[in-house]
Amino acid sequence: MKHLLKFIAIVIIIISLLGCLVAILISNVQAEEDEVCRNLLSDSLRDEIASYRNIFNDICEKTTTGSSRGSTFHELSLFIDAFGNRIAGSENLENAIDYLIEKLKTENLENVHAEPVLLQSWVRGKESATLLFPRRQNLPILGLGNSIGTSPDGITAEVLTVQSFDELESRSSEAKGRIVLFAPEYISYGKTVVYRSKAASEASKHGAVAALIRSITPFSILSPHTGMQSYEANVTKIPVAALAVEDAHLIQRIQGRGQRVVVNLKMEAHFGDIKTSRNTIAEIRGSEHPEKVVIISGHLDSWDVGQGAMDDGGGAFISWNALVILKALNLRPRRTIRTILWTAEEFGYVGAKQYYKDHKNETNNWNFIMESDEGTFNPIGLNYVSGDKGSCILKEVVKLFAPLNATSSTKSDSVGSDINLWLDEGIPGAALLQQNEKYFWFHHSQGDTMDVEDPSSLDKNAALWAATAYIIADLKEDFPRD
Amino acid sequence: MKHLLKFIAIVIIIISLLGCLVAILISNVQAEEDEVCRNLLSDSLRDEIASYRNIFNDICEKTTTGSSRGSTFHELSLFIDAFGNRIAGSENLENAIDYLIEKLKTENLENVHAEPVLLQSWVRGKESATLLFPRRQNLPILGLGNSIGTSPDGITAEVLTVQSFDELESRSSEAKGRIVLFAPEYISYGKTVVYRSKAASEASKHGAVAALIRSITPFSILSPHTGMQSYEANVTKIPVAALAVEDAHLIQRIQGRGQRVVVNLKMEAHFGDIKTSRNTIAEIRGSEHPEKVVIISGHLDSWDVGQGAMDDGGGAFISWNALVILKALNLRPRRTIRTILWTAEEFGYVGAKQYYKDHKNETNNWNFIMESDEGTFNPIGLNYVSGDKGSCILKEVVKLFAPLNATSSTKSDSVGSDINLWLDEGIPGAALLQQNEKYFWFHHSQGDTMDVEDPSSLDKNAALWAATAYIIADLKEDFPRD
Repeated sequence: MKHLLKFIAIVIIIISLLGCLVAILISNVQAEEDEVCRNLLSDSLRDEIASYRNIFNDICEKTTTGSSRGSTFHELSLFIDAFGNRIAGSENLENAIDYLIEKLKTENLENVHAEPVLLQSWVRGKESATLLFPRRQNLPILGLGNSIGTSPDGITAEVLTVQSFDELESRSSEAKGRIVLFAPEYISYGKTVVYRSKAASEASKHGAVAALIRSITPFSILSPHTGMQSYEANVTKIPVAALAVEDAHLIQRIQGRGQRVVVNLKMEAHFGDIKTSRNTIAEIRGSEHPEKVVIISGHLDSWDVGQGAMDDGGGAFISWNALVILKALNLRPRRTIRTILWTAEEFGYVGAKQYYKDHKNETNNWNFIMESDEGTFNPIGLNYVSGDKGSCILKEVVKLFAPLNATSSTKSDSVGSDINLWLDEGIPGAALLQQNEKYFWFHHSQGDTMDVEDPSSLDKNAALWAATAYIIADLKEDFPRD
Repeated sequence: MKHLLKFIAIVIIIISLLGCLVAILISNVQAEEDEVCRNLLSDSLRDEIASYRNIFNDICEKTTTGSSRGSTFHELSLFIDAFGNRIAGSENLENAIDYLIEKLKTENLENVHAEPVLLQSWVRGKESATLLFPRRQNLPILGLGNSIGTSPDGITAEVLTVQSFDELESRSSEAKGRIVLFAPEYISYGKTVVYRSKAASEASKHGAVAALIRSITPFSILSPHTGMQSYEANVTKIPVAALAVEDAHLIQRIQGRGQRVVVNLKMEAHFGDIKTSRNTIAEIRGSEHPEKVVIISGHLDSWDVGQGAMDDGGGAFISWNALVILKALNLRPRRTIRTILWTAEEFGYVGAKQYYKDHKNETNNWNFIMESDEGTFNPIGLNYVSGDKGSCILKEVVKLFAPLNATSSTKSDSVGSDINLWLDEGIPGAALLQQNEKYFWFHHSQGDTMDVEDPSSLDKNAALWAATAYIIADLKEDFPRD
């Protein structure tokens, strides 16, 4: 007992010393950052931002405890339960867009309309993979977007498993006539997804007849994950599909023992017709500078598996519900807030690219652009792309979010998918910073359902989204680009 | 900064006071328990148990860092990759048993043999469920064990969702001609599984034509979970299957809005022939009292989905590899250690019941019985059923497991599945205490694969299993029953 107390005392002393050290270090770093922003932000701008505290609190209260509480989840579940997944090119997506346009009109949002987007449709059809040797087992797969199919009998071939493009290069002679399985360890989505986008082309260069990938996810309950891939020009197109992590490991283990692995792969995947889809737009027009715009966005299309509730139902729905909440509070900012619900994001930002082309002349007036496409989990702040002065403004803005414990802000190179076109041009923008560690567990899989979404987190995200857009759209001065 | 330091100081003082309080409380409880065991255990018995420290360390070293390191995972993966899942009544299970008998003989274990078990086989066949109204969607299902099937066209009916048997009772008039979906919140497996085992019978009593359940799991990536159910006598048998949690919620939400939900359920499930399977046995014979026995066990059969790697490949494999490890260390205890690999556990402990009948006259000589059937995750100690003196012995034994950080012990009413027959008769026994919080994420689903198993945890479990069995089998006095 005496020893225990002595031990506790020593631990406490060590903790307290470490605590002091950390506090000193933090306060120094903080002081330097504060110094930079003190030079860049005038006191009046700082005061102006702080003056939005009551407005934020109103938005927050209405959304998280007041009459709008649970509204994003409620509307999203009505939508998801009615339409399910919504692949670009499908009639179902167009029906879902029709439904939403009616909804936005019913909510009395302004300038509600859709803008046409031409796209090359792709159809999955039936698909299956079967382990034939050393024993028979069904291997659940998801073909990758834009993959070609196989003949009705499928492709039967021995599998060559590799961990990397380098390993494939060094075993090139073994790849000819084989199905190449890429089974790299998952490091991060950003680092590992190249094995999805390039698998078919790289395997084809070495004479493979088809490609498989280990699904791009850190966690699996035998759940394959689809996603886009593209064929390089001048490379023979071969079919490509994702295996569940567990089945990739199974094949890897068997092959690691020097045993042959033979798989039959059947896919009906094919390109369909050129189709017309639509970006969906709604606004609250600005009171002083209606031509100046702050954009909040998400995408309405999804993959053809799961329900597209997380990717990107949640992001799309906070983006229009933010307008409804502002409207209900009679908050009309100086500049216009425009909600854009992109189409065909999953096919390579097709809707965004069209919008970029169609609105090229107006972007001088775009102040700020936001997209939520990484889930709508519990938010902790904003992730942004901005110059130094803009960063300082955003740091002042997130201070207002203390009631939601969402005062973090991080500067990034890229914060969206569709909006990168504009970010790359120097228009500043932001995404939600959130506790989305499990995002890729569900991403592009059958597990993307309403169960991933949480009413309270959606409320908080809607409040953050509405407040950020409103404050930036209402500031006396334009949001700085540098 | 000053305020921060003051705050830190206050927090430290509060923590230290709380720490002292907890330490005092713990030491008091500990003292009382120690007092009980001081009266029950003689110093010589205590010393005897402590004298196994070096033996435990040898077992531990060999298994976790020495020549047996990784051997359980290696052998299990060879087995699982070769046979996959192994439902009772299948030729595949019998082939797997043949393989294992050969393996146990090759390892020079003693008295290796199998004992026949008659069982009623059950065959899943093809199965599907389709949401027809308000929209069409495939609903992945797993029929429950011993369910009957449907006609080839299936059963098409409106769904009535209830949260409990009580709710069904109160809505009895709505159940007639319907498919009743039980969608209780998951509380714990023990508390919620009754909605799997009784769903069909309870729904049938109210005139339902089929039953569905929300899978018995706290987490899902659209993964249905099967399991055993049984029909009450004198109740019309109706088909029953498990939906994924997400799809149960989908139907629940739609119905909650007052909308009709119509589902078509097709199942080919049916009883097959009476088949013969086998319990598999191996021993290290006791040097002084070979007729006295300590049993370690797991089951070799699995459900017909996933790979049966976790349930119960891991448990079965530590149970025989423990003998191999003891053998390699030349550790022959006074009493016999018998490994039993049960068959047809999933069909209701059929193998264990047969063994119980066939060995009824010998159980006077059974000292202790162990089963691992709740996963082989990182172990933290033992979970046991025992009288007071036995508890005190086990508390001394787990002290030896400090090198594995596995010195916890908890007393329970039930610690196994197959072994309950004997525990109920007063034979003391134990299971692993482990960090198996995710066990039911994978249990009875396609996600039960080698990816759930971890080489290092299997090593630790094998070491704990071998040491516990050896020490109890080798103590000078028999393990006390009261």
